[in-house]
Amino acid sequence: MRTRSSIALLFFFVFLSVSSAYPGKKKQYRPCKQLVLYFHDVIYNGKNAGNATSTIVGHPDGFNLTILATQFHFGNVVVFDDPITLDNNFHSAPVGRAQGLYLYDTKNTFTAWLGFSFLLNSTDYQGTINFIGADPILIKTRDISVVGGTGDFFMHRGIATIMTDAFEGEVYFRLRVDIKFYDCCKHVVLNE
Amino acid sequence: MRTRSSIALLFFFVFLSVSSAYPGKKKQYRPCKQLVLYFHDVIYNGKNAGNATSTIVGHPDGFNLTILATQFHFGNVVVFDDPITLDNNFHSAPVGRAQGLYLYDTKNTFTAWLGFSFLLNSTDYQGTINFIGADPILIKTRDISVVGGTGDFFMHRGIATIMTDAFEGEVYFRLRVDIKFYDCCKHVVLNE
Amino acid sequence: MRTRSSIALLFFFVFLSVSSAYPGKKKQYRPCKQLVLYFHDVIYNGKNAGNATSTIVGHPDGFNLTILATQFHFGNVVVFDDPITLDNNFHSAPVGRAQGLYLYDTKNTFTAWLGFSFLLNSTDYQGTINFIGADPILIKTRDISVVGGTGDFFMHRGIATIMTDAFEGEVYFRLRVDIKFYDCCKHVVLNE
Repeated sequence: MRTRSSIALLFFFVFLSVSSAYPGKKKQYRPCKQLVLYFHDVIYNGKNAGNATSTIVGHPDGFNLTILATQFHFGNVVVFDDPITLDNNFHSAPVGRAQGLYLYDTKNTFTAWLGFSFLLNSTDYQGTINFIGADPILIKTRDISVVGGTGDFFMHRGIATIMTDAFEGEVYFRLRVDIKFYDCCKHVVLNE
Repeated sequence: MRTRSSIALLFFFVFLSVSSAYPGKKKQYRPCKQLVLYFHDVIYNGKNAGNATSTIVGHPDGFNLTILATQFHFGNVVVFDDPITLDNNFHSAPVGRAQGLYLYDTKNTFTAWLGFSFLLNSTDYQGTINFIGADPILIKTRDISVVGGTGDFFMHRGIATIMTDAFEGEVYFRLRVDIKFYDCCKHVVLNE
Repeated sequence: MRTRSSIALLFFFVFLSVSSAYPGKKKQYRPCKQLVLYFHDVIYNGKNAGNATSTIVGHPDGFNLTILATQFHFGNVVVFDDPITLDNNFHSAPVGRAQGLYLYDTKNTFTAWLGFSFLLNSTDYQGTINFIGADPILIKTRDISVVGGTGDFFMHRGIATIMTDAFEGEVYFRLRVDIKFYDCCKHVVLNE
């Protein structure tokens, strides 16, 4: 009897409470897993081929480039392969790579759009995490979507809060990525 | 007793009915939230730098461009930052921006592939919605995936049905986006 | 009584067993749907405009291209529209098209990042499947995320395991894609 009523209670909690209104109270979801990582982007400037981890590969074309791609880089597409570290030190041993693209997408301020993956390969984690989302760079913290994962992050979903941790002109920036998984795939059916 | 049996019924409904076969009957899912929005794309043509909201940034290279990138623009990659409005009027007050990329990906007809975000910032909605999917432009309505969201759209998933609402040659088009969220994150565990 | 206890059992199984620890035992999830498909990429080389299904559209710019985009194609962005077949024969009748982009993202080996859709149009399946993920090409099998779907794949999520089935220099490759859906949208509420 105890068991049955606690099941009913849990069931009630999961399916009904969540959908009910909490007037004047913000819902607080609880991550099922959380990771804080840093990645480091060294942009190719023609002289740093050895160290560069990213490069501009597209820009407004066919006309005078300087009209649209001003100091805000509107239209620039960048491909990257950046080291991931556990702390904010560029020289720490990488635990993986951040690979994908970003593009600058506003004419009169700095904003970007991101599509990339984390490939983690450490004693703690083996697997990939896939991200997409908008990055209004000048805002202190920005949320993007974690849309899937593989390996240790099999079918995970969540939110990544990114923050510019440091930057040096047009050559280097470092992002702090606070990944909160809210779906760790517990609703998927297991094989028996 | 009533409560317990209605819970059992709901449980049965959610977990079993859905997976059962309905011979000859199409399943009808119910959105948990729905939004209809428009966005407006003004393509840079070399003369409209002030008004343009998008620009071609990539095209087939290394050879005679006209061979592949014909009138169907195969291989053209476009970066955009388009205003979002509640109705189909370009001059309505924007409620946000659509930012990301599209690319033309067929040699002998018009088709595109989309990766972008809606950044909504209005009294009704604060947050972002992330989309990817194929866009066979000449078909009247096309479905793409809503793969995640943040803020008011925290962890949402769904389907967006897009429709070309208007276009003017190679300079302007307007898309109607009917967003149906089917997963509003009610299965995620709340903090107590 | 039998029914109620079996419901309780199933409920227990779905919500509690999955989250419990299995020391020393790897979790085995069961796909709710599985598909194996092949797609064929014929890269434009300046002479094969008729047959080509993909083309390079971006590369590291502004400087000497050969410094970064070496034989590993770092920074090259490719747009594609490839035929999908049920077997590994390029001449089999296509059941759909794979459309989107890939980009090469390492300086000293072959790795790629993928964002694309399958548009299936056959007697068996009508709908689209959307993918993103990292592709370390030289590893035998690579997992990417299935982040959404439409039509027959409405709201599906899963993992696609890709494998280079064949390649011919820089002109042709064929990928085998083993798609395992683990979320076939059974948790979404049906309309009554």
